[in-house]
Amino acid sequence: MTAFSPNIRDMEFVLAELAGLDEVAALPGYEEASRELVHSVLEEAGRIAAEVLAPLNAVGDRQGAKLVDGKVALPEGWEGAFRTMVEGNWTGLPFPAEWGGMGLPGVVNVAVAEMWQAANMAFTLCPMLTQGAVHAILECASEEQKAVYLPKLVTGEWAGTMNLTESSAGSDLGAIRTKAVPQADGSYLISGQKIFITYGDHELAENIIHLVLARLPDAPPGVKGISLFIVPKFMVSADGTLGARNDVAAVSLEHKLGIHASPTCVMSFGDNGGATGFLVGQENRGLEYMFVMMNHARLNVGVQGLGIAERAYQQARAYARERVQGKPAGAAAVTPIVDHADVRRMLMTIKANVEAMRALAYVEAAELDKAHAEPDADKRAQSFRLAEFLNPVVKGWSTETGFDMASLGVQVHGGMGYVEETGAAQHLRDARITAIYEGTTAIQANDLVNRKILRDKGATAKLVLDELAALADELAAASDSRLKAIGTELAEGRRAAADAVEWILSAAPQDPRLPAAAAVPLLKLMGVVLGGYQMARAAKVARARLDAGEGDLDFFEAKLNTAWFYAEHVLPQAPAFLASITRGADAVMTVPADQL
Amino acid sequence: MTAFSPNIRDMEFVLAELAGLDEVAALPGYEEASRELVHSVLEEAGRIAAEVLAPLNAVGDRQGAKLVDGKVALPEGWEGAFRTMVEGNWTGLPFPAEWGGMGLPGVVNVAVAEMWQAANMAFTLCPMLTQGAVHAILECASEEQKAVYLPKLVTGEWAGTMNLTESSAGSDLGAIRTKAVPQADGSYLISGQKIFITYGDHELAENIIHLVLARLPDAPPGVKGISLFIVPKFMVSADGTLGARNDVAAVSLEHKLGIHASPTCVMSFGDNGGATGFLVGQENRGLEYMFVMMNHARLNVGVQGLGIAERAYQQARAYARERVQGKPAGAAAVTPIVDHADVRRMLMTIKANVEAMRALAYVEAAELDKAHAEPDADKRAQSFRLAEFLNPVVKGWSTETGFDMASLGVQVHGGMGYVEETGAAQHLRDARITAIYEGTTAIQANDLVNRKILRDKGATAKLVLDELAALADELAAASDSRLKAIGTELAEGRRAAADAVEWILSAAPQDPRLPAAAAVPLLKLMGVVLGGYQMARAAKVARARLDAGEGDLDFFEAKLNTAWFYAEHVLPQAPAFLASITRGADAVMTVPADQL
Repeated sequence: MTAFSPNIRDMEFVLAELAGLDEVAALPGYEEASRELVHSVLEEAGRIAAEVLAPLNAVGDRQGAKLVDGKVALPEGWEGAFRTMVEGNWTGLPFPAEWGGMGLPGVVNVAVAEMWQAANMAFTLCPMLTQGAVHAILECASEEQKAVYLPKLVTGEWAGTMNLTESSAGSDLGAIRTKAVPQADGSYLISGQKIFITYGDHELAENIIHLVLARLPDAPPGVKGISLFIVPKFMVSADGTLGARNDVAAVSLEHKLGIHASPTCVMSFGDNGGATGFLVGQENRGLEYMFVMMNHARLNVGVQGLGIAERAYQQARAYARERVQGKPAGAAAVTPIVDHADVRRMLMTIKANVEAMRALAYVEAAELDKAHAEPDADKRAQSFRLAEFLNPVVKGWSTETGFDMASLGVQVHGGMGYVEETGAAQHLRDARITAIYEGTTAIQANDLVNRKILRDKGATAKLVLDELAALADELAAASDSRLKAIGTELAEGRRAAADAVEWILSAAPQDPRLPAAAAVPLLKLMGVVLGGYQMARAAKVARARLDAGEGDLDFFEAKLNTAWFYAEHVLPQAPAFLASITRGADAVMTVPADQL
Repeated sequence: MTAFSPNIRDMEFVLAELAGLDEVAALPGYEEASRELVHSVLEEAGRIAAEVLAPLNAVGDRQGAKLVDGKVALPEGWEGAFRTMVEGNWTGLPFPAEWGGMGLPGVVNVAVAEMWQAANMAFTLCPMLTQGAVHAILECASEEQKAVYLPKLVTGEWAGTMNLTESSAGSDLGAIRTKAVPQADGSYLISGQKIFITYGDHELAENIIHLVLARLPDAPPGVKGISLFIVPKFMVSADGTLGARNDVAAVSLEHKLGIHASPTCVMSFGDNGGATGFLVGQENRGLEYMFVMMNHARLNVGVQGLGIAERAYQQARAYARERVQGKPAGAAAVTPIVDHADVRRMLMTIKANVEAMRALAYVEAAELDKAHAEPDADKRAQSFRLAEFLNPVVKGWSTETGFDMASLGVQVHGGMGYVEETGAAQHLRDARITAIYEGTTAIQANDLVNRKILRDKGATAKLVLDELAALADELAAASDSRLKAIGTELAEGRRAAADAVEWILSAAPQDPRLPAAAAVPLLKLMGVVLGGYQMARAAKVARARLDAGEGDLDFFEAKLNTAWFYAEHVLPQAPAFLASITRGADAVMTVPADQL
């Protein structure tokens, strides 16, 4: 395992030049988010990532989480890392000061999260889930509930969890069976079993606040009969003191491919009569409330894909710079393998994809900030619409790509990549979950097709692609040969994306299986093209800075070349996805299940 | 873990219709390989794969190989499986009867190997390495050496290993430092350390015959100063009885991402004065001898990619047929997820790639058989040339694809795929090594570009692509709409492949880094297109059988549809690779190493 050193240089470039940090900081409530303050925040978070979290990553992988005498034991160092997060109020970063948060924009939180996910994804899932619980309570719970639970959740002293999945209700939450029976005192008795509950139990926090989807006795079937409940591990009295242990427990942990240190629990509610729960909002609107926080949760998982890819990149780059093996083609002498053309191609592939994923994730986060804080209702709605469109793409594409990049990272190491001690394989194993949890890639793709494209008849997609077309045309006419190539490839990619959207719009009414069969290739196509758009925007800025001779010229030159690499090596995938969408959807269902 | 059931139906189709089994069986020495006999062999090997090897796969993964008191301990059941292999003379399948083998063609051995790799790759590495040692000794050793070592290696009673890699000599074998000092009795004293030695030591066989690359005291530097030695674990007297333990030992085992039950040893030669070795062939020609057996070894690793993909497919298909979750788009009721369009797309993607990989591997094996047994020297040379061309493609493309398919297999399972008990994750972990050992994908790609394309100025490539063009044209003119689509896509793929070859030929003289940067995308392009060619051939046969109403019509209908799926979903990648090759090679090297 090599050291991790956050790429704050590129993160700040993306924040300032692509995500529009200054614009976000101009919104009411975000005034503190000046470039200077954000710089300090990133530096401090980066230090913690590098010095506290990263060194524990391999330790956590080796030791894993264990269930010992009914308690979840976490690896050495987890306790200290948890304290560090609480002391720095890092969980509270994106939440209002009135609840004890830092009140900074979500886009800054995403940048910080990237570093922590890169440093130690298995650990970072804990504060990430707590932030998710805070979002849900902030947006859906009563003032009284907020007063009881938010203060200690926002500071990260208490942890939060999401209890959705059951053994027969994974992608299909309508099949949930956990029961909630109303009690005379207004509370509910919760009983049932939940699976795949991340950080479902542990001893790090003095209390754990479970958000649980369950069904009332008279609830209608399916997704319209699910309600959301708060189920604390320890009951909380009105003055905030902790009371009795609630009837909820982790009964087993999963043995997983990766993120070994993240306890994935089977949670049992009500083994001894029933767990006490408190309804959030109204009955039967639980799934709707979950969707309120879905954008944050999915964006965060997309950021895991980005973070792991950055970590895998640093690991592979360090090895390639040190390892000497053979004479590169055209070289006069034996030099480190970083000079071998194919090793360089692999490293550039990871670098280019990481930079594109970073830009797309930060842009979505900034749009979510605007959707939250922009005073103008139309602009707010517009930002929300854009963020909603980007959300499944960031989640689906960045996690699939993150895994592929972690695998390339292994490849750069040759045989050493297959040896666990090296550390490259852990990134591969950890990354694999990101395309599965919080909605598989197919779930993201169906969201993109059904809720983000078909629902508004492609209007948002058209808006996005038109903006992209304007830049592609501008760059294709540039005198710089690299900008020209970027513009040309981007225009090709845009055409493929636009054709795919047209096809989806015309195919859906004919046969609902056609868009479903085409959804994942469409999501990947969108990721490749929208990532390429962000790289093109970056290239344009870099060219301008180079022309002006301003700032870190080596960085801008590398940025321009990386964008060019992306255009020549990644964007050409777009027409392949288009072919698979428009010509291939019929071919998907023709072989009957019994002939598979 | 689900049961494994070899797909003998498709294997026999490929053998008979695509690899030309009848043609191979008509060659001198292979007369016994009638379809009937081959059927019996496949049935019996398949039974062993399903009943003996497959149930041990997860056991081996969990228990792993361990070094205990200087001895390599293997998982429960390994001993019995080893005995089964010896009793059936399975290691001897492709070797001459005069040495105790079955004398069957290599293409039959490859079909059998596919089942064993699918059933239990970690176990199968042992007989696979022994077969490699037999090839090397058969083709390069003296008659005396053959008489001493072959009988028990061919029957699989003794095991063989390949000792090439050292810590500073991986892809670059020219850097080998292990020493061989000539002794008065004609033997050599071998000393040095080898790493990544698969099945370097164990107690399954009564003796292990190590083939070791080492350097004589006066050897020229680099690859021209490497010699090949036989170093037995126990000395063997002329009458075949075993003598003293030689000075060679496994000093540690690697802790790896996968193939846990395959002991990957650090081997120390000469810790106590020197291991006794015997020169194979002439001094300083060791690397050349290794290349003699390289085609077999690399083909076998390509078959591992194929085998694991088939296993991952069966695992995912079984899960998809059982797991009920949500209502598929356009469906009237809740049905198993195999009816969800995206699950079907994933399964079809694996199925189509498996069938293409199978066909390409078997075709290469048949060409190797012809290169070995064909009486006509021109035909022999032609077959050898073709096999040599296909070799890096089968190794590189099938292993990269095999891993991607194992990952898709995980995805089909959703969250359960990430849980180790399910078994899907093991296939992913096991598959990851195949693109690394026996020459990484980049090494295969450089072999394809330098030795198989540039050396004959693209003549073989042109020959292959012309054959392909004829079929593409024929099918594009067919009345069946699926054949027509296959022909059209194949023609596009061929054009991309031909353009890529042209580009390589013209770029190489300009700058040697250009073909090196383009090599891996070129290898993948070739895999996709040559795999598509085999699927097109299969589709043509299937159409003819359907028209004639002959045989298993459901199978032929599924084959035609699978080939169509491949054409629409896999072949369109070809132009993307072309873009990355011709337009992207410049972009690879532009960012300086310190700006990565």
